[in-house]
Amino acid sequence: MNTETLFAHRTRLMSANAIREILKVVSKPGMISLAGGIPSPDSFPMEIMQELTGKVLHKYGSSAFQYDRTEGFEPLNEALSIYLQKKAIQADSKEVIVTSGSQGGLMALGMVLISRGDRVAVESPTYLGALTALNPFEPEYVQIETDGDGILPESLEAILKAGPVKFVYLNPTFQNPTGRTLTLERRQAVAGILKRTGSLLVEDDPYGDLRYRGTALPPVKTLAPDNVVYVGSLSKVFAPGLRIGYAVAPEPIRRWMVLAKQGIDLHTSTFNQALASEYLFGGYLDKHLPEIIRLYKPKQEAMLVSLSKHFPREYRWSRPEGGMFIWVEGPKGMDMETVYAKAVEKGVAFVPGKFFFTRDGDGNETMRLNYTMSDVPTLDRAVRILGGVIKNFNEGAQS
Amino acid sequence: MNTETLFAHRTRLMSANAIREILKVVSKPGMISLAGGIPSPDSFPMEIMQELTGKVLHKYGSSAFQYDRTEGFEPLNEALSIYLQKKAIQADSKEVIVTSGSQGGLMALGMVLISRGDRVAVESPTYLGALTALNPFEPEYVQIETDGDGILPESLEAILKAGPVKFVYLNPTFQNPTGRTLTLERRQAVAGILKRTGSLLVEDDPYGDLRYRGTALPPVKTLAPDNVVYVGSLSKVFAPGLRIGYAVAPEPIRRWMVLAKQGIDLHTSTFNQALASEYLFGGYLDKHLPEIIRLYKPKQEAMLVSLSKHFPREYRWSRPEGGMFIWVEGPKGMDMETVYAKAVEKGVAFVPGKFFFTRDGDGNETMRLNYTMSDVPTLDRAVRILGGVIKNFNEGAQS
Repeated sequence: MNTETLFAHRTRLMSANAIREILKVVSKPGMISLAGGIPSPDSFPMEIMQELTGKVLHKYGSSAFQYDRTEGFEPLNEALSIYLQKKAIQADSKEVIVTSGSQGGLMALGMVLISRGDRVAVESPTYLGALTALNPFEPEYVQIETDGDGILPESLEAILKAGPVKFVYLNPTFQNPTGRTLTLERRQAVAGILKRTGSLLVEDDPYGDLRYRGTALPPVKTLAPDNVVYVGSLSKVFAPGLRIGYAVAPEPIRRWMVLAKQGIDLHTSTFNQALASEYLFGGYLDKHLPEIIRLYKPKQEAMLVSLSKHFPREYRWSRPEGGMFIWVEGPKGMDMETVYAKAVEKGVAFVPGKFFFTRDGDGNETMRLNYTMSDVPTLDRAVRILGGVIKNFNEGAQS
Repeated sequence: MNTETLFAHRTRLMSANAIREILKVVSKPGMISLAGGIPSPDSFPMEIMQELTGKVLHKYGSSAFQYDRTEGFEPLNEALSIYLQKKAIQADSKEVIVTSGSQGGLMALGMVLISRGDRVAVESPTYLGALTALNPFEPEYVQIETDGDGILPESLEAILKAGPVKFVYLNPTFQNPTGRTLTLERRQAVAGILKRTGSLLVEDDPYGDLRYRGTALPPVKTLAPDNVVYVGSLSKVFAPGLRIGYAVAPEPIRRWMVLAKQGIDLHTSTFNQALASEYLFGGYLDKHLPEIIRLYKPKQEAMLVSLSKHFPREYRWSRPEGGMFIWVEGPKGMDMETVYAKAVEKGVAFVPGKFFFTRDGDGNETMRLNYTMSDVPTLDRAVRILGGVIKNFNEGAQS
């Protein structure tokens, strides 16, 4: 076969997700990985899994293994509707669509919304997995200016006024990769801009429940319900391997997402949806979430302390109130890809921040550090090693 | 929001899967459905599900609930490699990609292969779910001429010679919707044409294991391995609700499918893949498959007898050696959509065959009947009622 002409135009944009490639490298034994975006297996409620599977088999029998509705296993849609009320999101179970991870929701949205060349506005930096889902539909990305408190509303407004934007994509709470959270004031400003300009926001919120300090903020969805598709996931509060995500979208977007999902995977695993509905309805999440927080909070605090101890003074980093990541910014001129290569030699991996920008040349001096996968002493050791590599790099550059 | 300009161009092609819509109508209590393509829940190995989940929890623990490789849970890739050898398909575990149902495999293929306007050659009639997966990428379909033994190789050759075709899509064994099987001679002819013309075939084979009579035929994949992407599923031999499909594709198509799948759903449920690998490695399928066949064979035979008893003489239907469907062709001029409406009033549903053709106006006189979901007396009653509706329709037309 002539493979030159075999592939679709869009494949030129479908490069490997850099992080997934990095994760392959770092799965070597002995490597300390600050690279993943992966929950600790200690956070999974393993002690109830046998009980949950037993409950599902008893309650639903063979129907948990049968083909099911594309929009979701009805008990899970209901459980999610109730769960979302705690975030002040008012969504009838019919307004909730279950997706195969939040990835499946982003894919469906890209499919129904983006024609080639359509502009999509994203944070700088932004979540890489969203780009992987949207790239096949050949959008053009516009970067919204961002500081430690999330996007600048005036930058968003300027972009929306400059020309048509299909949608805005934000991860406003404990953002991947920065850990940053959009302030309440800015959420209100963003909601106002969306309404005034008649624009659509895709609000991705996989980390919102992982709050270690401070007060929960309302999702932007609650401030401009008709202008926001809210995308979430049980991957960080139940188990990522079950691939259960969900979305709440205004009509007719929800209906089109269901049609897209018919083609994407027909429906999400019935059995896993039944497990998730038992998990939510059984009140297990309410008991389990404080345990996850007790697990992660000291890890995050330890990493913040280690950064203060081991990183040069001119470095800055985020101090998120939750989530899974700390974002480190070195001085301009640093090349974190080189640092990455040297750090891996010394047994520590992280993700160079440049991969989270849509514009080439941005973010060379940044890094994303994850703290969920290692214990406190290991985190301190890893940060010390990274600090050493960075100091050597600087001395090398000066000599 | 202005929903006129909100959606992508491609959505005009993404109409609802007609069958999924019909299935919603027929889920009413008391309705006898010959409409589904759904395995009987009696075919699921429910008696071993608790045992399988216990095994997975014991053997893999939390790693069965963690993020995993996009290409598949390694033990399942290995189990599938061995399973495929029984079909004479030689594929190393690295050559197998696990997908979220065969739907997920077709979606990934559409994504990496089809640019807008590319031609894709399909059977007439063809499997509707494949069109649902491919439509978002805006192909143009070309219908290959078909008779009771599957496609006519000379029609395929003429199409491939007439102009570029991205790929050919066939369901050569117990086809959905007709139940037809491509003969060995034609398989060899098709393989020869693919090789001579350097063309790509997507061979969809979800029903191949459900053989009630006759001798197994080699997949086209075994006759032209470099020219065929083989797509399969455990939905008909384990449990559809677990959403486990797979594909064997020549490089570099396999690699691009993995990249597409990173965007589509990151990976298929780890837990469900672990269940499937235990099912295959534990030898359960070998024990279970004869039971499924014992369940379906008498149903199919009963439906064939009922058709002879209750349908007018001028009607013809397929007599498949396996699978889940019988295809009925009435005389030209019959309108099976009207028959459908009247049959539903009398409590029997089926799928009008026109939905399986890519060209408007084709197949108005055809119907797809499924026999897996009802018992023998119910099947006879349903066919009798359908026969009555058809006879009334004919008398109405003559008066």
